[in-house]
Amino acid sequence: MAETVRTIVVRRDVLADVNADAAAERVRMAKRGTLVVHLVSSPGSGKTTLLEATARRFAGRRRIAVLVGDIETDRDARRLGPLAPTVQLTTGGACHLEFPLVRRGIDALGDGPLEYLFIENVGNLVCPASHDLGEHLRVVLISVTEGDDKPGKYPKMFRTSRLMLVSKCDLLPHVPFSMDRVAEDARRIQPDLDLIAVAALDGTGMESWCDYLERERDRLVGD
Amino acid sequence: MAETVRTIVVRRDVLADVNADAAAERVRMAKRGTLVVHLVSSPGSGKTTLLEATARRFAGRRRIAVLVGDIETDRDARRLGPLAPTVQLTTGGACHLEFPLVRRGIDALGDGPLEYLFIENVGNLVCPASHDLGEHLRVVLISVTEGDDKPGKYPKMFRTSRLMLVSKCDLLPHVPFSMDRVAEDARRIQPDLDLIAVAALDGTGMESWCDYLERERDRLVGD
Repeated sequence: MAETVRTIVVRRDVLADVNADAAAERVRMAKRGTLVVHLVSSPGSGKTTLLEATARRFAGRRRIAVLVGDIETDRDARRLGPLAPTVQLTTGGACHLEFPLVRRGIDALGDGPLEYLFIENVGNLVCPASHDLGEHLRVVLISVTEGDDKPGKYPKMFRTSRLMLVSKCDLLPHVPFSMDRVAEDARRIQPDLDLIAVAALDGTGMESWCDYLERERDRLVGD
Repeated sequence: MAETVRTIVVRRDVLADVNADAAAERVRMAKRGTLVVHLVSSPGSGKTTLLEATARRFAGRRRIAVLVGDIETDRDARRLGPLAPTVQLTTGGACHLEFPLVRRGIDALGDGPLEYLFIENVGNLVCPASHDLGEHLRVVLISVTEGDDKPGKYPKMFRTSRLMLVSKCDLLPHVPFSMDRVAEDARRIQPDLDLIAVAALDGTGMESWCDYLERERDRLVGD
């Protein structure tokens, strides 16, 4: 077989530029009074259901908007659209969001007053860990049905997150899952990781989650 | 900022070589009488638990071996090792297995008689879809707790699989999930996709799954 040699010129500071843009957006959003929250998890851990419940709880009190990433379909945006301004970011095959696409979503939302911007990444417990989307807070969800051994097996995602939401905890009686074991496993990787158990469908933990967000936002805007 | 220019020489037929190696291994395994089964899914869909139950069911009747892929830790190999010859393939950060690492696993297992070789990929519903591991049968697991809307959102994995195992179906009474909807969604992408509902923990569907494997192997070895 003939050997084909291609030469590719790499501008090494492309990624540095993207990261600088994300960092600048983080500052701009803080000045605007908007806490940017980046949600990551496996597919089906309940990110969209959590955001539906969060939007309902903040309705009339806090203005929120959502950027929702998927490889294909606008299913999540259809669910969230009736509850909050939402932009679907479709990656067209890519396994994670990167900041330039997020930037386009932020532009599409406009510059109105906003207390919270949620960015829901593609369901993937690996690749999104490596990309700064300009968030102030990265939250990793792990559902009780996924098993309490996951943090050690997918460490980068837990190492780069500040809060772990243990989701679908209403299913705890039906699955082999220990809250102590998952906490111990995750904190071996990230000792400062906060943990809240939630069940968006029955409301468990939703008050703690929203209080956590409010405290984070207070700290950000300094009021 | 100084612009750094790097030149990378790409041997374009590297991937072609890897795919040719995988295809050759598929032929070699068929001649050896070994059905190679590649399991893919999100993290925590139950691949390892399914393999534990499969190993127990085939014990004394069929010789099986397992290559288990993870980013870090040897947790899955520790679970499977007491039940079947198992090699842990640790990717060290990479989000999926590729054939050269699988090849090393096959070499480590040796050339003894073997009816089934199971390859459990890293939990990731996106990236593993693009890589041929030399399998005869690709099986995608989706647990009922992940939601019935996942095939359309992660289409490549369902398009490249021949069998969908709907796992943890013992939890169906507790979650919003429709077997009809998931089947319809998946078959819109891959009309020939077979479907078996399983619950490895209580044994539901395990006989159908093992019968399916036996038929696939019979067809492969022509007996």
